[in-house]
Amino acid sequence: MKTFVVKAFGTEAPEADLKQMNIERREATAKDVEIDILYCGVCHSDLHTARNEWHRTTYPNVPGHEIVGRVTKTGAGVTKIRVGDLVAVGCMVDSCRECGQCRNGSEQYCEKGMVPTYNGREKYLNRQTFGGYSERVVVDEDFVLRIPGNLDLAATAPLLCAAVTTWSPLKHWETGPGKKVGIAGIGGLGHMGVKLAKAMGAHVVVITTSPSKIEDAMRLGADEVVLSTDAEQMKTSANSLHFILDCVSAQHDINAYLKLLKVDGTLVLVGAPEHPLPVSPFSLIPARRSLAGSTIGSIRETQEMLDFCGRHNITADIELITIQDINSAYERLLKGDVKYRFVIDMASLKNPKPV
Amino acid sequence: MKTFVVKAFGTEAPEADLKQMNIERREATAKDVEIDILYCGVCHSDLHTARNEWHRTTYPNVPGHEIVGRVTKTGAGVTKIRVGDLVAVGCMVDSCRECGQCRNGSEQYCEKGMVPTYNGREKYLNRQTFGGYSERVVVDEDFVLRIPGNLDLAATAPLLCAAVTTWSPLKHWETGPGKKVGIAGIGGLGHMGVKLAKAMGAHVVVITTSPSKIEDAMRLGADEVVLSTDAEQMKTSANSLHFILDCVSAQHDINAYLKLLKVDGTLVLVGAPEHPLPVSPFSLIPARRSLAGSTIGSIRETQEMLDFCGRHNITADIELITIQDINSAYERLLKGDVKYRFVIDMASLKNPKPV
Repeated sequence: MKTFVVKAFGTEAPEADLKQMNIERREATAKDVEIDILYCGVCHSDLHTARNEWHRTTYPNVPGHEIVGRVTKTGAGVTKIRVGDLVAVGCMVDSCRECGQCRNGSEQYCEKGMVPTYNGREKYLNRQTFGGYSERVVVDEDFVLRIPGNLDLAATAPLLCAAVTTWSPLKHWETGPGKKVGIAGIGGLGHMGVKLAKAMGAHVVVITTSPSKIEDAMRLGADEVVLSTDAEQMKTSANSLHFILDCVSAQHDINAYLKLLKVDGTLVLVGAPEHPLPVSPFSLIPARRSLAGSTIGSIRETQEMLDFCGRHNITADIELITIQDINSAYERLLKGDVKYRFVIDMASLKNPKPV
Repeated sequence: MKTFVVKAFGTEAPEADLKQMNIERREATAKDVEIDILYCGVCHSDLHTARNEWHRTTYPNVPGHEIVGRVTKTGAGVTKIRVGDLVAVGCMVDSCRECGQCRNGSEQYCEKGMVPTYNGREKYLNRQTFGGYSERVVVDEDFVLRIPGNLDLAATAPLLCAAVTTWSPLKHWETGPGKKVGIAGIGGLGHMGVKLAKAMGAHVVVITTSPSKIEDAMRLGADEVVLSTDAEQMKTSANSLHFILDCVSAQHDINAYLKLLKVDGTLVLVGAPEHPLPVSPFSLIPARRSLAGSTIGSIRETQEMLDFCGRHNITADIELITIQDINSAYERLLKGDVKYRFVIDMASLKNPKPV
């Protein structure tokens, strides 16, 4: 199969910094779209994978699954995308397309495992997939999204993972008007959760450990803020919420959060604490509560979310960086020092500024 | 308020054996039904409460919430029940009747707290409620159930708690034909779960730690048995079940069970392990699984379950005992030495055999 070489930023080992490298992309096949990458968001999963914290990284690794760009080439069989279109690619670039989940439009739960945008399996070249920290990417048109014309391109990139990961459960569990929705943890995911839940018409209650986030939570659209460190506030808020989106990736007292739910309420984990959370049966049984989990979103959901964001003029709060800043950005990410998502201006890879 | 005295079996302190005592019942008010108790099932909650293991027992305590009997008196305003009827009383004898849950027919989740059959609050006499280990009980007709004529009366008693506690979640989560339903733990609750899920039309998979229960599980109606202690069987069964009813009250590896669920599957706790269960977020997130809890069932659900059991000729597997056997029965219960429910023949309280 024909390939071409592009510049990328990636890493050769768990302890190594990311650095510039060359990678090969396949020439676009009949169904493929070749995209010139303009912006790429920085997700915490990028860092986990680059550093092999999930113990399944194949090196070299090129992270990045919040990709925004312009189409430079299309295969002969591509029908929905044209050269020059502004498009996006999220966390998946393929799936089996045959199982019940794929046929049902839930590729993220593909029974054979969907193909992640990076550190997945590139079936054409029989090696790992490489992500968006690169000049160009080649993706099957079925996994390419259209971007509404009115949105700021850089601030759109994080919608592809951070937003759809909150959108999918908010839609699946039918939140919206008349529902009181808690959003726990205001970071990359949580800040999008607040904006989306509010725009969907829900009454939004931010749950945070940190008094310093109250003002920002209200600015993002929260109707109320509950300080989880204030026992009195937590007690007053018991049995009050229909739904909680839990975006906290640090260990936390899940039982205290569960008790905020009404009868038949559901708390959905989208942040993924590394260690098991001790769940008391008595947090669930007396009120028929549920603790669930959810991962990213389907292609259909991603497109619906992008169209919704276009109509409501919603993007992420970002800090734009150059690709050369990526290693220090990772260090700041570890400290939670970003409001609320780093986005790489990929022009910096193509035309680095002289030092 | 007028009262009358009846014989009962109860306890004065956590460490004390149960013994015969006299208690007062209110005279039937306009809406009340007075019932001569024929049989009373022995639930593990009886033991937990008698011994104050849930730290909220008021003494003296008279347990028993699986009550079957015959109506001996009705108040002037009683319309649905007549003297001579065979009736039953389960885990609740009242609720606020005004909150959203009560108006919605879900009294078990009453926002002000339903009134348990024992160790609840008897509003007429302003003291604790006394349960079914007694000669007679007086209950508002709205909390009295009708018993189908074809069922064995003694074996019907456990339907009032053990069966409805499994029926309610099996119905709420819409199990039935086309669904693969796991039942974990074959005891008082689990053996009813198997019978009911099978009669509802589900494909029933019993999950047990004990090879000695395989034969019994098949006899009760299981289509398959998975040994949870056999890693190979658990691996083969991964992602195969739509629903799991978890009746295990001992500590157990909940993550191993969660992994048996398909995408969007739910595991419902009805057994209540004393300590928190460590739940790995990765048991839930990649397949949008849910861990939920459920408690007993509503009055409407209880009547529906009894009518269903009448049509399908379903009762509990029981061992009939005298009230004088109750303390040794509790010791056997602690060892799991009962197939699958003790039921007290209450004639032994009225007319004890000479020793």
